[in-house]
Amino acid sequence: MTEFDLIESIRTRCASTRTDVLLGIGDDAALLAVPPGQALAVSTDTLVAGVHFFSDAAPFDIGWKSLAVNLSDLAATGAVPAWATLALTLSSGDDAWVSAFADGFAALARQFDLALVGGDTTQGPLSITVTVHGFVPASLALRRDAAQVGDAVFVTGTLGDAAAGLGLLRGDLCAAPETDTPNAHRAALIERLHRPTPRVAQGLLLRARARACIDVSDGLVADLGHICKASGVGAEIDLIRLPTSPALRDFVGDEARAALQLGGGDDYELCFTVPEQQVPALIDALARSGGAVTRIGRIVAGAGVRVCDAGGNDVARGRAGWEHFAA
Amino acid sequence: MTEFDLIESIRTRCASTRTDVLLGIGDDAALLAVPPGQALAVSTDTLVAGVHFFSDAAPFDIGWKSLAVNLSDLAATGAVPAWATLALTLSSGDDAWVSAFADGFAALARQFDLALVGGDTTQGPLSITVTVHGFVPASLALRRDAAQVGDAVFVTGTLGDAAAGLGLLRGDLCAAPETDTPNAHRAALIERLHRPTPRVAQGLLLRARARACIDVSDGLVADLGHICKASGVGAEIDLIRLPTSPALRDFVGDEARAALQLGGGDDYELCFTVPEQQVPALIDALARSGGAVTRIGRIVAGAGVRVCDAGGNDVARGRAGWEHFAA
Repeated sequence: MTEFDLIESIRTRCASTRTDVLLGIGDDAALLAVPPGQALAVSTDTLVAGVHFFSDAAPFDIGWKSLAVNLSDLAATGAVPAWATLALTLSSGDDAWVSAFADGFAALARQFDLALVGGDTTQGPLSITVTVHGFVPASLALRRDAAQVGDAVFVTGTLGDAAAGLGLLRGDLCAAPETDTPNAHRAALIERLHRPTPRVAQGLLLRARARACIDVSDGLVADLGHICKASGVGAEIDLIRLPTSPALRDFVGDEARAALQLGGGDDYELCFTVPEQQVPALIDALARSGGAVTRIGRIVAGAGVRVCDAGGNDVARGRAGWEHFAA
Repeated sequence: MTEFDLIESIRTRCASTRTDVLLGIGDDAALLAVPPGQALAVSTDTLVAGVHFFSDAAPFDIGWKSLAVNLSDLAATGAVPAWATLALTLSSGDDAWVSAFADGFAALARQFDLALVGGDTTQGPLSITVTVHGFVPASLALRRDAAQVGDAVFVTGTLGDAAAGLGLLRGDLCAAPETDTPNAHRAALIERLHRPTPRVAQGLLLRARARACIDVSDGLVADLGHICKASGVGAEIDLIRLPTSPALRDFVGDEARAALQLGGGDDYELCFTVPEQQVPALIDALARSGGAVTRIGRIVAGAGVRVCDAGGNDVARGRAGWEHFAA
């Protein structure tokens, strides 16, 4: 497959009818129209074979995830996705691989009416860099530096699943002895690793309700730590409140689960802080949208993230084991 | 150097005071304000070690070139550069390398008051993906598909220098026997390969004067061919008119020079077409700006690019040897 064919294969799969794309793929630059009153939100993330995904992972999943991790950043900003560029470095122009990759990318793009507006294909070790663009009124954008003492801390979805999926693929995580449906659980956990769901709709509902927000890509403690550092505050998390999928609950014991949920990355859930008076309206709005959300702690004076057990006592970092995940 | 230090090292070197950057590096997404009445021009290009540059090339040059090749795309669109994101994949966090890379990137960014607004640093085989953003009123943007029969074909600067520099570094190009200052010429040609000059100012002057435009990254025949294909026309180039630097003229013989100028890439000059009645105004405007520009041919009915010798006869592709450069 030549570079031209490769671009064409991707372009046809990602065709879009957006009228704000004045000139799309095929010229030196795309020409795009940002709606009046909206700020442009821009984020970029790279996935490298052998680092961020297994080199023999399904190309559909790689395509999906390369866009999902970027859309997750827009979600954490409260932005509506609009456009993306795709820089794809491939060691060989394998037709079937490229087609499946493009199918995965396009399947997620369609969910958000996102247009692929440009890119570059180069020869080299497999890696993918996607840059996404979205819209948000500047005054409503969610940021990391806006948490305040007294805010409640929430998280969407469930935590620890993707890290468990990774552990299963690596072979360093085994099912708990009492597990009776390991295969279905195993598939569910690995699916969460390969096809994360960017929480775009939830991010939009957080506008004007949440204060600070971040997506959980490096692990809950690390990412909530970024909010704390940027905002000049501390946070307390109640271990018992962390939202847990049925698959994860059945599959691993409590100790292993805590480590995965506190330190494991790749969940791409949103962690956000909410002023107490906004909590009822927020829970109501999110419940009506069908998106799960769980209150897991509070913002406090100080610095850093403290994890509490059911009695309110510190869970030692060593005991819960999440430092093994620290970068 | 940790990922945080690495980002900080780059961020401090690329500090900007642009007021249209509402939120810069350090959050999930940058927040940016596009001026009213302007379209957003977006382009992305990847450079891979061992493919687009020698792995042991000076990191300053790699930083410079990774931005330059992207700015060249904005120039070819007639856009004013504004912002960039940088996705840097590195096999090791070598402090000195990263600092020099950032210095090279920043040196060129400062020339255009371009703000680095986001990015990603990952571990893996060395490669760099930059996405640039600029502004241009949509009706004034230069495109590939607007050439018309009768247009004059122009090119900025000189052609073939970067390809000669590459040949020198590879050892497959030697100085002509009569050359008496080979070292200075050698340095000049290699400099053109390593530090291309994006023709942003010229691109702006082409607005409302030129019809079609492209930057010469793959070689003159290939890139003018893209204009022809997009516009549904053909082109004739006069070999004798191709602008040649003193270094290239002295350094190689006529045959080798023709191949480098017709087929060599990496010059990052602009090739554009101009309606005849606009030619005097265009030459005047470009002369006042100090930018060299040369008329090299014309747009004709048909398809593809024909190269003519001094007598107006076809120069056979095989004889001039530029097919060796074809992708």
